[in-house]
Amino acid sequence: MSEKRTEIGEIGEFGLIDRLNEKIVIKHETTLKGVGDDAAVIACGEGKVKVVTTDLLMEGVHFDLSYAPLTHLGFKAVAVNVSDVAAMNAIPKHITVSIGISNRFSVEAVEALYAGINAAAEHYDVDVVGGDTTTSRAGLAISITAIGEAMEDQVVYRSGAKENDIICVTGDLGGAVVGLQVLEREKQVFMANPNMKPDLEKYTLVTARQLKPDARMDIIHELRDLEVVPTSMMDISDGLASELFHICKASKVGVTIYEDKLPIDQQTYSTAVELNLDPITCVLNGGEDYELLFTIKQEDFQKLEKHPDIHFIGHVTKEEEGKFLVTKSQTAVALKAQGWKHF
Amino acid sequence: MSEKRTEIGEIGEFGLIDRLNEKIVIKHETTLKGVGDDAAVIACGEGKVKVVTTDLLMEGVHFDLSYAPLTHLGFKAVAVNVSDVAAMNAIPKHITVSIGISNRFSVEAVEALYAGINAAAEHYDVDVVGGDTTTSRAGLAISITAIGEAMEDQVVYRSGAKENDIICVTGDLGGAVVGLQVLEREKQVFMANPNMKPDLEKYTLVTARQLKPDARMDIIHELRDLEVVPTSMMDISDGLASELFHICKASKVGVTIYEDKLPIDQQTYSTAVELNLDPITCVLNGGEDYELLFTIKQEDFQKLEKHPDIHFIGHVTKEEEGKFLVTKSQTAVALKAQGWKHF
Repeated sequence: MSEKRTEIGEIGEFGLIDRLNEKIVIKHETTLKGVGDDAAVIACGEGKVKVVTTDLLMEGVHFDLSYAPLTHLGFKAVAVNVSDVAAMNAIPKHITVSIGISNRFSVEAVEALYAGINAAAEHYDVDVVGGDTTTSRAGLAISITAIGEAMEDQVVYRSGAKENDIICVTGDLGGAVVGLQVLEREKQVFMANPNMKPDLEKYTLVTARQLKPDARMDIIHELRDLEVVPTSMMDISDGLASELFHICKASKVGVTIYEDKLPIDQQTYSTAVELNLDPITCVLNGGEDYELLFTIKQEDFQKLEKHPDIHFIGHVTKEEEGKFLVTKSQTAVALKAQGWKHF
Repeated sequence: MSEKRTEIGEIGEFGLIDRLNEKIVIKHETTLKGVGDDAAVIACGEGKVKVVTTDLLMEGVHFDLSYAPLTHLGFKAVAVNVSDVAAMNAIPKHITVSIGISNRFSVEAVEALYAGINAAAEHYDVDVVGGDTTTSRAGLAISITAIGEAMEDQVVYRSGAKENDIICVTGDLGGAVVGLQVLEREKQVFMANPNMKPDLEKYTLVTARQLKPDARMDIIHELRDLEVVPTSMMDISDGLASELFHICKASKVGVTIYEDKLPIDQQTYSTAVELNLDPITCVLNGGEDYELLFTIKQEDFQKLEKHPDIHFIGHVTKEEEGKFLVTKSQTAVALKAQGWKHF
């Protein structure tokens, strides 16, 4: 080994992943897609594929047990993987669950975690088929792998967006990050004075968005019923702007989106203002919304036009036209994919 | 949740897993096998199946970076999952790799880990198709999921052993645990006096068994060539005695094995003696050998008889006959599946 020491911070998490991915060699024809999308795609014969995705959640990084109830955490750990399967336009069927637990957890605590995992398995109609339960010297670690099914010609990648396609998002955005700020604030209040009862009632919606997100399998089933196959799709885990950058890079296109089309819930908006956060920044860079971002051909617009939970936020442009947000005052500003962590 | 607090130690790791598994509900016909074997088995149509297994390795529990080189650790993390796929008589094809790393790791350290992962992917002919790279507040966590292929009628479960079947093991046993004791001893010496150079040359074989085990895919391919389908199979990760208990429980059978048939390498034997360990205890309860334990019909014996690396250690009996080790002095003693951790 070389003696050189490069800090991960110097090249960033995405830089590290790029460097690691460069060395991967694909040998099997059945590997239709390896790293670089929401899930891998493996051919199974007869035009059928399995999609595979995995997530590792670490205590103190992805969750804080001082405000995340274990049952919600179990549900969320499954939901975020289901969301990645959904983002490939596939149907999740099987998951494996590995947990690393320290001896500060009781049997009842582990059962509470699994109650959430099982509730999510029921909700998303997936079977828990395996896993690993092991000791951890430090915090809780949860690793889930989800396997979904689709026909090869139904799979939607990040790379299929074309000029003039319409950009759609489901639900509303920014709630999860605003909910996190509320939970962090109440935790600070509680730590300063343990007799203070956290005041969370008026923030129910945003805290639920953070603690118990729902993967949009409903939309995937509806798209099938309406015979709409998106041209590209991702789930919104790192923030709308960041995901749009991924689609632009993979599809070699540009995008123009409109501020007045961005879906934001009233409670998200008012809570953001209360917390001195810019609501539009929360929508663009908040992350953890687990809504779907997808593009459709113009001719499919009519089929979705009246859908109450799909919003049309802009359109795909030529790559050289760049990536822009048109503000309410009709000014086009360059989109930035800064993500939340750099704030 | 109930206010009751049960410590995990009270019911043990296997007790906890049993309690969690009781709550799992299987909903899909394609789930041919869920939890309870070396891997899950998922039907893919046309008689084809995918087998899926996952392992979570935590620093300080499964490995100690003070003596496990990162490249070896990466290789081992893949090998232990490949070994589980092999134990189903399937061929591994795809893996996902998730790692949680703290900022004490440099980019070069992570690359060393991945060099081992990629070397194993090359060695076992599997594609790395996805994963997750994330921050860890504490130690290194590595979660790997392996997916293999087989025809449904070739899959070998723990539950298929029948009376009079012959019990086979590959390679030699006990080396990995003896290697671990050597590494632990040298670590203590080094910690007491950092100027002492560890004396590992004469222990190369046993330390390699601990640090860089090899999954026995060679045996799986040879069994196919010889047209032998074992009646039951497992890989030996927790110790021969413990695995025999799993096969007896799943197959509802007993076993008789013979001390003088147990394969042990000369260096394992002499090092065990030097360390005041009973070599046969190391063979029976050592664990981490990643050799294969399987049973065959009597009529298949001839096909394997001359194989230099398959050893015939006993036979399957009726369940009510119990589980016995016949010692060199021809005494039958009850087998105990104590595993290494209770020593």
